[in-house]
Amino acid sequence: MSFDIPQLAEITIDDLEALGTGAGILGTGGGGNPRIGRLRLQTLFEDEEYPDSVKLVSPKDLPADATVASVGGMGAPTISVEKFPKGDEDYKSLRAIESFSGETVDAIIPGEIGGANSMAPLCVAAMADLPVVDGDGMGRAFPELQMDTFFIYGSPVNYAATTDERGNQVVYKDIDSAKRLEDLARAITVQMGGRSGYAFPLMTGEFISQYAIPHTVSLATELGRTVERAREQGDDPVKAGRELLGGKDLFEGKVVDVHRRNRDGFAMGSVTLSGLDDDSRLEIEFQNEFLIARADDDQVLTTVPDLICIVDNDTGAPVMTDALRYGQRVRVLGVPAPELLTTPEALDVIGPEAFGYELAYEPLPRGETGW
Amino acid sequence: MSFDIPQLAEITIDDLEALGTGAGILGTGGGGNPRIGRLRLQTLFEDEEYPDSVKLVSPKDLPADATVASVGGMGAPTISVEKFPKGDEDYKSLRAIESFSGETVDAIIPGEIGGANSMAPLCVAAMADLPVVDGDGMGRAFPELQMDTFFIYGSPVNYAATTDERGNQVVYKDIDSAKRLEDLARAITVQMGGRSGYAFPLMTGEFISQYAIPHTVSLATELGRTVERAREQGDDPVKAGRELLGGKDLFEGKVVDVHRRNRDGFAMGSVTLSGLDDDSRLEIEFQNEFLIARADDDQVLTTVPDLICIVDNDTGAPVMTDALRYGQRVRVLGVPAPELLTTPEALDVIGPEAFGYELAYEPLPRGETGW
Repeated sequence: MSFDIPQLAEITIDDLEALGTGAGILGTGGGGNPRIGRLRLQTLFEDEEYPDSVKLVSPKDLPADATVASVGGMGAPTISVEKFPKGDEDYKSLRAIESFSGETVDAIIPGEIGGANSMAPLCVAAMADLPVVDGDGMGRAFPELQMDTFFIYGSPVNYAATTDERGNQVVYKDIDSAKRLEDLARAITVQMGGRSGYAFPLMTGEFISQYAIPHTVSLATELGRTVERAREQGDDPVKAGRELLGGKDLFEGKVVDVHRRNRDGFAMGSVTLSGLDDDSRLEIEFQNEFLIARADDDQVLTTVPDLICIVDNDTGAPVMTDALRYGQRVRVLGVPAPELLTTPEALDVIGPEAFGYELAYEPLPRGETGW
Repeated sequence: MSFDIPQLAEITIDDLEALGTGAGILGTGGGGNPRIGRLRLQTLFEDEEYPDSVKLVSPKDLPADATVASVGGMGAPTISVEKFPKGDEDYKSLRAIESFSGETVDAIIPGEIGGANSMAPLCVAAMADLPVVDGDGMGRAFPELQMDTFFIYGSPVNYAATTDERGNQVVYKDIDSAKRLEDLARAITVQMGGRSGYAFPLMTGEFISQYAIPHTVSLATELGRTVERAREQGDDPVKAGRELLGGKDLFEGKVVDVHRRNRDGFAMGSVTLSGLDDDSRLEIEFQNEFLIARADDDQVLTTVPDLICIVDNDTGAPVMTDALRYGQRVRVLGVPAPELLTTPEALDVIGPEAFGYELAYEPLPRGETGW
């Protein structure tokens, strides 16, 4: 079936820098570096073979029986900056789940809005000439795929595929849980050199309209534009971004220590910040994404699923896990998570305990957030 | 297309014990314990829903354009004795490669004749009502799938599938080398708890008639019968089996030490034997299968691809890697490998260097072997 879904907005080459900045901030350190995806998308938009824009549609405008699939890149962000994708891995994965299921996908949705995975779905949409849903499955980035709202709220783990830069393709079928799909696809991604392009699962428009985090593509673009505008006008870009997100300042300081290693396909570690003018400290632990922020008296300031965003102190640009280095001057923001991430069923999968911390989730005060 | 392939023999419940014994000996320690597969096959033959025999066909009688697929179990033999298969894993994998490729399989061939993987293809054949080719891809067992003659002699790595006991299914497509398929499928098998049922690749009758090791199902059955007969007649069953295979006695003694651990999905280690009446020693290193036999002066007696078979000193029954234990009295046989395993292109993949040993392959004297 082919649907004519109303257009909410058009994403063109002029939106990409702002989207990359906003998605980098929402990526909480992970989701991959948006810069590589942005360059890929620019190349596509400039290529005559492909359209020069992508149609953005509202989740509320999806026909109930439209077929929607999520695409993106899987792997440690530390690897994706050294091992560049070929560019068609997730597109090929989309075609694989179509061919193996016999279904035709009507729209693409980002699995996570954070980082490069904001750009990858737009690339696939341009290559497949499909609209992109203004929303995603995380409202940020998370390290594991069962952490998508799609799976938290009961999408069957039907067809999934991962493809590497050589075209090697692995398809998953009748998988009995999203966590098992995560384990299988992660093991394959490690074998594929630490990065693969994925597509999964097949969902209906009705499901997406209920369980996607809405309007995060627009939000990320608006966030990027807000930061850019403040920068141009000589205002504080960090403050402008924070206000748009309804977040709070957790810390201002410089990076004094980074522990980071690749383990089981993830970038694991911690970063320690020190105050600019005093001895105050902040330690942030991460698994691809920033998970927990602790003050020097061991007081926990923020935990998943709330967002911990590290941004450059002067420019407001996001600082990803892979780019953390000694001496950087940064600010750390805490942003309340979207409500779909804070229900009891969501906290089972993405709360601090799901990451091995014996901590209850203490929500940040919820201001006027963008979602 | 459906083919009427002439019948070479019929495999019934009366053949299974002999086939299990013979396949155990040819398994050189690996290929899985044939006992479990035999019980499964007995159950199938006794079930009214399934045929009570399987048709065995000669590789030479396959129509050139018949479609043949290989099926069996993947994993460490030490695991398969504790984690029993459900029984339909490899059957489901066969159906998966049929469904994903759009082709229909006309005959089944064992990937390896050794161990349980002699029985698994018969189970699948009974379930799918298909004939089994009298031959296999190894003439023994090997630990990794690129070591099949099918891949050594150039079968494309087209469709492959692995399934676990819960029905979780992973399909591999357009894989650029058999070694990569091994790496991907092994990682999945480890995630599946150390054991999976596989089906791969799709081959033509013409290819199989050239590159399968011929008549190894018959040979294994005859080997088992020969050992049984000698046992019943009060002859030396080990000698009877050795003579049938054209092998030589490498050692007689008892197990005095076993190092065995599961690593990366394999049973890795070594077994040391001591002479019954003297201090002579033999050390055998293994990766699922026995690879290298060394005398106590470090002299290498036998290496892959030649077969190193450990059998019970009294009964001639095979002793698998998982069953090695202190005090067992055993004899060690060296058996020349089939010629298809000793060509330069085969030695690149299954010679001692392929297993990390800096040793040239010194073939055992080739007597009147069964193949």
